[in-house]
Amino acid sequence: MVRLARVGDRSVAVVAGPSGDHALDLGPRPLPDLFADLDGIRDLVQRTDAETLPPLDPSTLQAPVVPRTMLCLGYNYRGHVPDGVDSTADDPATPDVFAKTPNTFAGPNDAVVVPAVADDVDYEGEIAVVIGRRAHAVPIDEAMSYVAGYTLLNDVSDRSWQRTQSQWTLGKCFDGFAPLGPWVVTADEVDPQDLLVEVVRDGEVTVSQSTATTIFPVAVVIHHLSQVVTLEPGDVVSTGTPQKLAAAQAAHRPVRAGDAVTVRVGGIGELTTTFIAPPGEHA
Amino acid sequence: MVRLARVGDRSVAVVAGPSGDHALDLGPRPLPDLFADLDGIRDLVQRTDAETLPPLDPSTLQAPVVPRTMLCLGYNYRGHVPDGVDSTADDPATPDVFAKTPNTFAGPNDAVVVPAVADDVDYEGEIAVVIGRRAHAVPIDEAMSYVAGYTLLNDVSDRSWQRTQSQWTLGKCFDGFAPLGPWVVTADEVDPQDLLVEVVRDGEVTVSQSTATTIFPVAVVIHHLSQVVTLEPGDVVSTGTPQKLAAAQAAHRPVRAGDAVTVRVGGIGELTTTFIAPPGEHA
Repeated sequence: MVRLARVGDRSVAVVAGPSGDHALDLGPRPLPDLFADLDGIRDLVQRTDAETLPPLDPSTLQAPVVPRTMLCLGYNYRGHVPDGVDSTADDPATPDVFAKTPNTFAGPNDAVVVPAVADDVDYEGEIAVVIGRRAHAVPIDEAMSYVAGYTLLNDVSDRSWQRTQSQWTLGKCFDGFAPLGPWVVTADEVDPQDLLVEVVRDGEVTVSQSTATTIFPVAVVIHHLSQVVTLEPGDVVSTGTPQKLAAAQAAHRPVRAGDAVTVRVGGIGELTTTFIAPPGEHA
Repeated sequence: MVRLARVGDRSVAVVAGPSGDHALDLGPRPLPDLFADLDGIRDLVQRTDAETLPPLDPSTLQAPVVPRTMLCLGYNYRGHVPDGVDSTADDPATPDVFAKTPNTFAGPNDAVVVPAVADDVDYEGEIAVVIGRRAHAVPIDEAMSYVAGYTLLNDVSDRSWQRTQSQWTLGKCFDGFAPLGPWVVTADEVDPQDLLVEVVRDGEVTVSQSTATTIFPVAVVIHHLSQVVTLEPGDVVSTGTPQKLAAAQAAHRPVRAGDAVTVRVGGIGELTTTFIAPPGEHA
């Protein structure tokens, strides 16, 4: 398992040492260009003494990949089901899928502007699959070999725009509404169906649910989407969000400037997004 | 009014002469880089004798622009309304909007593969607005100044995939499902609310409706979308499709390999798309 990141115009491997994380330079080429040689990078990391490397400054991390296409799933985590009820009874046959447009793409250190016209902004903590090689109509049992690794997405939405029409596009696609990061954790040693997704808002855990409760495992999702969209290295498929915990749902208020939301998944990392007011435009 | 196109790795102005269309080379830069100097290009075209230029080979035309973002409208043309009924009574307050992903982008000479998994492929002839300069939260009365010109889109869809879920993304986003062209007609002298959109399928006119019947004029659409998505030069906003004529609707069958569909709009041009079978994949 290797962590791959972007710092400035360089790709780096993030290497843990006794004094913290360090950055092993991998050159200027974007991460998707390196996905074909993950074994070589892994060997290089294992041969390197972390303490000989410069320390990683997390505030310099950029989006690990800039996808050509970012596809996201709607309902994928089963909600709370009472004892004795078949938890799969209401599962949809296929996932509901939408796209985030390139104006939404942002990195782990980018603040998200709460648009003046959006009064019901919400967060969604998600595990994002990063595609490693071109995938077209791949069978389910080969699908995982097309995954380079995993990162985190805050699928920011404005519910008021989302609700105005049948299509969610505008609610999902305000500028900067897809902060991604902090790095790509390579797929080896990660079981994407056994991860705990948590969201922390202003110190309180508002989401805590395992990927074991998803309806569509990653392999099924890659298979399904690749029948339609030829996925390219660096493309991102986000796997949906769990529901908020009942208390958090009851106490929910729209995200406002000044809020901070952290998505954290053990084995992948943490993505903290701060929300800010728009610059004084059209004053 | 100037027609701007892409031929190979060159931008060209298409100049009409007595013997047909000719190509005035404008250099390698993509068309959106030239949108800031449309006056200069117009002057150059007017000073040029078409017959001194090489003839334009229409089979070499490529997509005039490769947008960062392509946004499309759902229902925008009012359907047939009986006499005495208020034609605006059921108008939605805001347009339904979806995105076509980059794998769909194609040019006027690209055949569209009818995917093996798609058994209900349909066509939609549309006028596509090409953005001329960065547009963020633009007022309605300034919106038209952000339009570089117009081209044509066949918003190809597979209705069976579109119907499986609430979001239309997968039905709209098979590889190559957004042939665009043949050129960008600059916005001067074009009234986008007074154009006749026609579709011809295998020799029969199946769509014929004026943009005067749209619910959302171009200026309103640009205003609305730019509140969410910062539109960039070369981005495409497609304005929706009229309904098929009643006879065509009654006789409709899914598009199959071997079919040809032409979108034509007087003052813009014609976009003919041929549909082909997939290459023998996974035999």
